[in-house]
Amino acid sequence: MAGRKITVSVVGGTGYTGVELLRLLALHPSVELTAITSRSEAGVAVADLFPNLRGHIDLAFTGPDIAALKNSDLVFFATPNGTAMTMVPALLDAGVRVIDLAADFRLKDAAQWQQWYGMPHACPQLLQEAVYGLPEIHRDAIRDARLVANPGCYPTAIQLGFLPLLEAGLVDTSGLIADAKSGVSGAGRKATVAMLLGEAGDNFKAYGVPGHRHLPEIRQGLKGMAGKDVGLTFVPHLTPMIRGIHATLYATVTGPAGDLQVLYETRYANEPFVDVLPEGAHPETRSVRGANTCRLAVHRPQGGKVVVVLSVIDNLVKGAAGQAVQNMNLMFGYPESAGLESIALLP
Amino acid sequence: MAGRKITVSVVGGTGYTGVELLRLLALHPSVELTAITSRSEAGVAVADLFPNLRGHIDLAFTGPDIAALKNSDLVFFATPNGTAMTMVPALLDAGVRVIDLAADFRLKDAAQWQQWYGMPHACPQLLQEAVYGLPEIHRDAIRDARLVANPGCYPTAIQLGFLPLLEAGLVDTSGLIADAKSGVSGAGRKATVAMLLGEAGDNFKAYGVPGHRHLPEIRQGLKGMAGKDVGLTFVPHLTPMIRGIHATLYATVTGPAGDLQVLYETRYANEPFVDVLPEGAHPETRSVRGANTCRLAVHRPQGGKVVVVLSVIDNLVKGAAGQAVQNMNLMFGYPESAGLESIALLP
Amino acid sequence: MAGRKITVSVVGGTGYTGVELLRLLALHPSVELTAITSRSEAGVAVADLFPNLRGHIDLAFTGPDIAALKNSDLVFFATPNGTAMTMVPALLDAGVRVIDLAADFRLKDAAQWQQWYGMPHACPQLLQEAVYGLPEIHRDAIRDARLVANPGCYPTAIQLGFLPLLEAGLVDTSGLIADAKSGVSGAGRKATVAMLLGEAGDNFKAYGVPGHRHLPEIRQGLKGMAGKDVGLTFVPHLTPMIRGIHATLYATVTGPAGDLQVLYETRYANEPFVDVLPEGAHPETRSVRGANTCRLAVHRPQGGKVVVVLSVIDNLVKGAAGQAVQNMNLMFGYPESAGLESIALLP
Amino acid sequence: MAGRKITVSVVGGTGYTGVELLRLLALHPSVELTAITSRSEAGVAVADLFPNLRGHIDLAFTGPDIAALKNSDLVFFATPNGTAMTMVPALLDAGVRVIDLAADFRLKDAAQWQQWYGMPHACPQLLQEAVYGLPEIHRDAIRDARLVANPGCYPTAIQLGFLPLLEAGLVDTSGLIADAKSGVSGAGRKATVAMLLGEAGDNFKAYGVPGHRHLPEIRQGLKGMAGKDVGLTFVPHLTPMIRGIHATLYATVTGPAGDLQVLYETRYANEPFVDVLPEGAHPETRSVRGANTCRLAVHRPQGGKVVVVLSVIDNLVKGAAGQAVQNMNLMFGYPESAGLESIALLP
Repeated sequence: MAGRKITVSVVGGTGYTGVELLRLLALHPSVELTAITSRSEAGVAVADLFPNLRGHIDLAFTGPDIAALKNSDLVFFATPNGTAMTMVPALLDAGVRVIDLAADFRLKDAAQWQQWYGMPHACPQLLQEAVYGLPEIHRDAIRDARLVANPGCYPTAIQLGFLPLLEAGLVDTSGLIADAKSGVSGAGRKATVAMLLGEAGDNFKAYGVPGHRHLPEIRQGLKGMAGKDVGLTFVPHLTPMIRGIHATLYATVTGPAGDLQVLYETRYANEPFVDVLPEGAHPETRSVRGANTCRLAVHRPQGGKVVVVLSVIDNLVKGAAGQAVQNMNLMFGYPESAGLESIALLP
Repeated sequence: MAGRKITVSVVGGTGYTGVELLRLLALHPSVELTAITSRSEAGVAVADLFPNLRGHIDLAFTGPDIAALKNSDLVFFATPNGTAMTMVPALLDAGVRVIDLAADFRLKDAAQWQQWYGMPHACPQLLQEAVYGLPEIHRDAIRDARLVANPGCYPTAIQLGFLPLLEAGLVDTSGLIADAKSGVSGAGRKATVAMLLGEAGDNFKAYGVPGHRHLPEIRQGLKGMAGKDVGLTFVPHLTPMIRGIHATLYATVTGPAGDLQVLYETRYANEPFVDVLPEGAHPETRSVRGANTCRLAVHRPQGGKVVVVLSVIDNLVKGAAGQAVQNMNLMFGYPESAGLESIALLP
Repeated sequence: MAGRKITVSVVGGTGYTGVELLRLLALHPSVELTAITSRSEAGVAVADLFPNLRGHIDLAFTGPDIAALKNSDLVFFATPNGTAMTMVPALLDAGVRVIDLAADFRLKDAAQWQQWYGMPHACPQLLQEAVYGLPEIHRDAIRDARLVANPGCYPTAIQLGFLPLLEAGLVDTSGLIADAKSGVSGAGRKATVAMLLGEAGDNFKAYGVPGHRHLPEIRQGLKGMAGKDVGLTFVPHLTPMIRGIHATLYATVTGPAGDLQVLYETRYANEPFVDVLPEGAHPETRSVRGANTCRLAVHRPQGGKVVVVLSVIDNLVKGAAGQAVQNMNLMFGYPESAGLESIALLP
Repeated sequence: MAGRKITVSVVGGTGYTGVELLRLLALHPSVELTAITSRSEAGVAVADLFPNLRGHIDLAFTGPDIAALKNSDLVFFATPNGTAMTMVPALLDAGVRVIDLAADFRLKDAAQWQQWYGMPHACPQLLQEAVYGLPEIHRDAIRDARLVANPGCYPTAIQLGFLPLLEAGLVDTSGLIADAKSGVSGAGRKATVAMLLGEAGDNFKAYGVPGHRHLPEIRQGLKGMAGKDVGLTFVPHLTPMIRGIHATLYATVTGPAGDLQVLYETRYANEPFVDVLPEGAHPETRSVRGANTCRLAVHRPQGGKVVVVLSVIDNLVKGAAGQAVQNMNLMFGYPESAGLESIALLP
């Protein structure tokens, strides 16, 4: 199929995930954007809301009309949780493929989904079919998927950081710790007092320590790697920057662990979007600003039993829109990095 | 010449202008990077200094060796002021074309250069030949130039903002005011206390009010547009952001000025990198973050005699490296926007 | 009256102006806080909303009950525009003195007020009596006032900057320019997309160029200084910091102006909260962060006819709550700097 | 001794710790500043370097002259590591009491000091006498001390966070984790590329994972609480803010741990500068900006075995200058909170 352009629609294009997806799709060589929907902004030119898109996207937002969406080869959902699940069955029935950037299809267990998202799932029968869109683990399944559940931002950074350790069975899986820090764009483009520059600027805090919605998603992924349930403490923090996630991961080795640097480099040798830094390095979030890359470093401080993994991504790119485009490329047979070659903006 | 790749070297690749130039050149379809020089970092891999370039640039810094540089079709200078002028004559003699991103060839008057830059000019005979690289004014001369003086960041934002008014002769040129605000990357990647996050963060100040080096450059450019000397008050400010310049320009109309919105839209109708916003708009620096675009808006508050022009650029792109690539494209017959298509990163 | 404590209430204590006022009043030696009202937060402990006040203020918010407020010696209004004017007449009748931090009593002309604030004024008969609370001009009237209209943040920075020039009659008052830059706390603690850290961070923009509500207030003040109408262009900008206003003021001298440094130092020699910096200096907003000081510098670039005045304040202190406390001190015979001695937080 | 003013000198007043100490001392009711030394700035007015001190401190920097310092009752060292130890013995011999804000006297073991600080200790005989200035543990010893070693910023936040757990013997001390995040002022007022706003702004990274100088200091303190050696993994991070430290602490309970909220509230019930937040809360660094407070919250996510403690301080206040003043108050019999009553600046 490579070569011809596919027609693509974006449902819910007014948030940060949406505008980032549009930034990437507008320059993708094999994509023709056909519709960008927004209930609240219908009729408004997309470039009026997002001036960076002036001259690149001429479409106006339209209302979310399933009949119109059925003409697309692929529909992305960049909507709040709970929206995609009401529209996806009809689209799949019409032969449209779907990538959901929200959480609707990330958990395999409908009861657990209801517990964390506070509503019953509208189409639990699709949860098993949906492919979890982390290419570094599920690449082959993604190629053939009708429905891809694009991973959350924290889950992407944390799973890629733990993956080599868990696959190799080197650490005690009952006491994993993920201390993660996110820029504010992870909270979306919603008007809330807590995310004002006057509140979140020059400030640092943890949040959601009693329980964050990404916890079951991460646990489910880590269980898949480890082949058994894992014990995970996950503490997210808000840091006064716009883009970027930094996950600091702690695990305890259960025996002689060998050369972890080699382990990580080997595991990710053929991954286009995972970059293992040299021994002793500390990745910076800005080194991936705007890029679809996850950069990792692995440490054993003072040669002790605790392994510390540092993992950075741009939450809007590898943590959302970029990974979605990577999944699209896999689904439609394009080069995996098509439209994703841009270099991080530094400084 | 379009079609074949040119060989390009960058002298002084360790500053912000340098890394931004490398970001753009690494993805340019018609450029082969052959050397990136740095006296202080010779031998270090470029991607070790700038981790965003990992996987994109494999070169190491080399010492600045003129003999080696002579093999390039084009040499960029991203050096401190006063360096390029010592090397350019030999390169031109060898048939190499040059774009200087520093100030060495921006002023036509060697005495004035010495006054503002504090040293005698090393090759005043080249000042007349050097073409001032503002494509919106000197496009044809740039195409044929051996030596292009890439404009300063403030001068780019301010000249593009005043240009239609001055060309049309609508305003009193004796009392122009340019109140400009820059992010800190404009000060370069030098270790100075004043640019520490602890000093420049959450802070705003003017600087250089008694006289800033960009003043004679801007005055020279405005004089060219107006056909006569102009009176200009230029006040630069430091604002706590990384990239971006916002120039707020004030001029007084001398008679009925007509529809200024039409004037601006007409003047820039065919300019690929100048975007006149709709009437009443206020451009934001983030709308051009990482992009080679200048966005403008023109106002006459309360319909009075004072015209207010708002002009934003990314100081490292349209204000430096992007404009340099635009000039390179013109000089070598490539599409003017080759390698410059990327969309601003927002948020 | 100095010596005894006065009872003070704050109406509308949930915004940034409110919390800053509470920070200052909690440590004021002569103030006993009796009520802090908020319609939306009634019943909530003040320190639950503003954790910096934990251990300093034990009150809970109460509903705005005029009967209860009548027991105070002084009521501050830190409410949105249009609220104070509905409650002030009853309080004055009860013998309570009032300082309004909003705009309700700043303009002398009720028609103009209606034009800029979009509603008819509820008690135009009080506009002449209300004293404009800029102590550097109206100190004596403030001492005796029943009702003080606390100036806006931009108006404070701009009026203090122009004052010596206009009183001395040295400049052309038909073409004054005030290019002002504000941190985001000036927009208040309201949930709006535009003030999110994801939007306003790492970004700079002008706003309100066609007309900002502070324009008539500033014009009225400047007219008072000049003794005649003035022509003023006022352009506010949003800069990515939390606190601080920097006003850059431009005026043209009409004759030999003498030594402006001496003029400024003389005019403000006895002012406890205006600090004229040495010749050639550039004030920084952080030098007044949290302090009730206005720092000024006056320049004549290249000895020309244009005077450039740089004026910085903390918008929440000298631009709001601190100035209100200064006015309170005057009204009740306390030392003018009581409760206002703290030093700016730097870095 | 309470009542009379003591004479105080500050050695090394040009860094962030120094200016913060001066801010606090300038308003302290019982302190008379007699000398502020700086080798590099001798002769410069202190307020010229730190404009926030204009009008508050009239002294100029002087060279560091031991003879002159001997006239003080107390000398603070706000110098780089390794300076105080060369001057302290002479001062103590002269009967001057000393508070060192650097690391010279924090470790009890001279060999360990040499290992981490890269030079032999100049007066190891004083290491046992020096009192570690954490009032919450060593209050009585501080009162009588001649020489106080003021704790580091990370060590303060981390020790206060772990203290109740370790004293109560509730957790496995072999696997403690401290994931800490600091604003850039922790790195001091030194010109380094890494701390430029252009580098550290909008960026997040870990550093010093293989080993940070605060590790032995923290371990020594935790050992004292636990009564035995502890296993600690300490990972510091740099977050793009100016002031503030947030420590996220992880420990595993070894049995039924009881009500941890009560444990923390009880332990700190009488501490003027430790504030235990209500159950479920998340402290923010801004809630202590400029204040000498440590705010804590304790969590057991999902009721599991892992305890998560959140601890915030202002690194320059409770993490440096404020704690030093608290120690001074104890040493000279002043009220412990004298000069430290100011409320955090929020927003």
